[in-house]
Amino acid sequence: MNSIDKLSEIFSHFPGIGPRQARRFVYYLLSRNHNFSEDLIRAIENIKREITQCSSCHRFFTKNGSPSTLCSICADASRDSSLLMVVPRDIDLEAIERSGSFNGYYFVLGGSLPILEKEPEKRIRISNLEIRINKDWEKLKEIILGMNANAEGENTADFIKEKFKNLDIPFTTLGRGLSTGAELEYADPETLKNALLHRSK
Amino acid sequence: MNSIDKLSEIFSHFPGIGPRQARRFVYYLLSRNHNFSEDLIRAIENIKREITQCSSCHRFFTKNGSPSTLCSICADASRDSSLLMVVPRDIDLEAIERSGSFNGYYFVLGGSLPILEKEPEKRIRISNLEIRINKDWEKLKEIILGMNANAEGENTADFIKEKFKNLDIPFTTLGRGLSTGAELEYADPETLKNALLHRSK
Amino acid sequence: MNSIDKLSEIFSHFPGIGPRQARRFVYYLLSRNHNFSEDLIRAIENIKREITQCSSCHRFFTKNGSPSTLCSICADASRDSSLLMVVPRDIDLEAIERSGSFNGYYFVLGGSLPILEKEPEKRIRISNLEIRINKDWEKLKEIILGMNANAEGENTADFIKEKFKNLDIPFTTLGRGLSTGAELEYADPETLKNALLHRSK
Amino acid sequence: MNSIDKLSEIFSHFPGIGPRQARRFVYYLLSRNHNFSEDLIRAIENIKREITQCSSCHRFFTKNGSPSTLCSICADASRDSSLLMVVPRDIDLEAIERSGSFNGYYFVLGGSLPILEKEPEKRIRISNLEIRINKDWEKLKEIILGMNANAEGENTADFIKEKFKNLDIPFTTLGRGLSTGAELEYADPETLKNALLHRSK
Repeated sequence: MNSIDKLSEIFSHFPGIGPRQARRFVYYLLSRNHNFSEDLIRAIENIKREITQCSSCHRFFTKNGSPSTLCSICADASRDSSLLMVVPRDIDLEAIERSGSFNGYYFVLGGSLPILEKEPEKRIRISNLEIRINKDWEKLKEIILGMNANAEGENTADFIKEKFKNLDIPFTTLGRGLSTGAELEYADPETLKNALLHRSK
Repeated sequence: MNSIDKLSEIFSHFPGIGPRQARRFVYYLLSRNHNFSEDLIRAIENIKREITQCSSCHRFFTKNGSPSTLCSICADASRDSSLLMVVPRDIDLEAIERSGSFNGYYFVLGGSLPILEKEPEKRIRISNLEIRINKDWEKLKEIILGMNANAEGENTADFIKEKFKNLDIPFTTLGRGLSTGAELEYADPETLKNALLHRSK
Repeated sequence: MNSIDKLSEIFSHFPGIGPRQARRFVYYLLSRNHNFSEDLIRAIENIKREITQCSSCHRFFTKNGSPSTLCSICADASRDSSLLMVVPRDIDLEAIERSGSFNGYYFVLGGSLPILEKEPEKRIRISNLEIRINKDWEKLKEIILGMNANAEGENTADFIKEKFKNLDIPFTTLGRGLSTGAELEYADPETLKNALLHRSK
Repeated sequence: MNSIDKLSEIFSHFPGIGPRQARRFVYYLLSRNHNFSEDLIRAIENIKREITQCSSCHRFFTKNGSPSTLCSICADASRDSSLLMVVPRDIDLEAIERSGSFNGYYFVLGGSLPILEKEPEKRIRISNLEIRINKDWEKLKEIILGMNANAEGENTADFIKEKFKNLDIPFTTLGRGLSTGAELEYADPETLKNALLHRSK
């Protein structure tokens, strides 16, 4: 395999990238001057060197030379320690932080569970979640399962609830209803039922 | 204009149909035998003859020779008369009935109000809604504004609430949250805020 | 079935229309005043009354009270009678007329043949085509098979060529190459081969 | 800017990649183990080290330690030196090679010219093309302008023809017609005109 094919092959593993677009990436790199590739290489080295996983929520964060193993959110003592929100990925955590509507702590599962997944423990950080819950179980009053509103999200929530069924902390799930932009005509019965259930003045 | 152009022109007014597809409809009709066109004409005549608007909710319904001016829902005394749900169009009412999660009565506005609409009274049946509310105001405990979760829906809800601001019956709106299939990563802040607000065990 | 369901059912047979859009058509008709439905009915009656199939090319055309059984193209003696172009449908004939690049006569097959079609004679007007060719065989110097550039089009062309293999008139097919807007990167080998073959100064 | 933002910013310059997908790339890299990033970095370094531009056609190729400045196509003396095909980018050259229908030599322009481009000489390798043509002008019998069938492609072809109008070698353009999959109904007049012009037995 020549080096164009080799780099194309690596890019084709990137999320959402097929072989054709992977090849365009390679030609794009070739067409840019040497500095661009050097910047790219340095940036990749930097994330590997500077980014670490938070020992509490497991999201990726920039160390910035600090010896702390906690990300800025987990290190922020002003947040509400009675609330823990479990989300599939870093990018979901970022979306919720951007919305500015949650002030508790997070835990990043690292993925979600497809129906009939045979090795759930390998796919999501379920034992780390256990450690995280145990650490704070006296303060925790609610664990929010912040999953996507699809079959995989529901399956993941069911798995977690079953796993911790003996725990004395209530699990909640995100409210269902009409997403922004949703039209009644195209809404499914489940969404409409919840929209009616959660109606507000 | 020849008759192919004329019929194409009429079909091009149908919702979602452009001139090209309108023309395909005409050729489709020409390609079918005479019975198909006759069935179509008869069915159009029938809806105009047999369908009427309910005098209470203003949805279209089949008279079936009955002298009643009420549709089957409005004529059903077993429904909850303390709840009135206002929806934009017949098709929205049908979606909610299909979901099986509402047992009150409906009122069909006949549309919704774009932002800055100059003549709202011509666009929606606001005076008929007034008559409908007045008729039952002693029984009504809640009026649900069943609007689409978009700017036009919110504008319509605002207009109705302003119009009836002196009325002593609470107006509610449908619950916002994650529609079926919604993913946190792509959800807007408003949806996430509501999803957190309406979380449930 | 009530009359709304009945008319929806008929509209759902229209090309490209599913049950949901068919139902929107019905509500659209109900929402328009009586004149609109009457215009629609009259226009449907008119195409059935005024439109007839040309006895030569089999396209649909407006009689306009004339006793002629020929459409305006077939009746136009100034066109080139040495060229006959066979097209699948009326709408294809219209596209070619609009392009202004053909001055011969047409024959409308009424469809095309899917691969492995068991009853080709029922699907396309092959015996009418035979009659049409026989009528003019002394004048005809070329029969152009104006098919779509897909498997069904090629299959139809193959069927016609096989059917008339003993005929002493050459069959031609439309030139392949780069359609307007085509990009080399996404072009298939067949298209590129033809684009190279048909290159021009 | 932290290192996640920095790498996202670089990925967002990749062709077809927006800020959201760029961020997903970063998290993807973080989620993969160290070897993956090292492979990626090494592959980027390799293309910069091993890949060079052919001194004749200007495509990128793998040196493989050879001191030759010619790519495998330009170094292949068995190809037809009377034909030179000018293409916008490496990826177009690859598409044509895959089609197996061209046996001459290529020249890669490095892009194409938008309408009203003010500095065409900076956008495409027009002076390198002049050098290439001059080198072989005695052998060259035809220069094929292998451009995309869009406005930018035509503009580029026009620019090249104007530039070399005093040259005694004919320029040709790729044949227009029906691309594979094209349907008559949706074809534009230009495509239909060419399809009729280039019809074949």
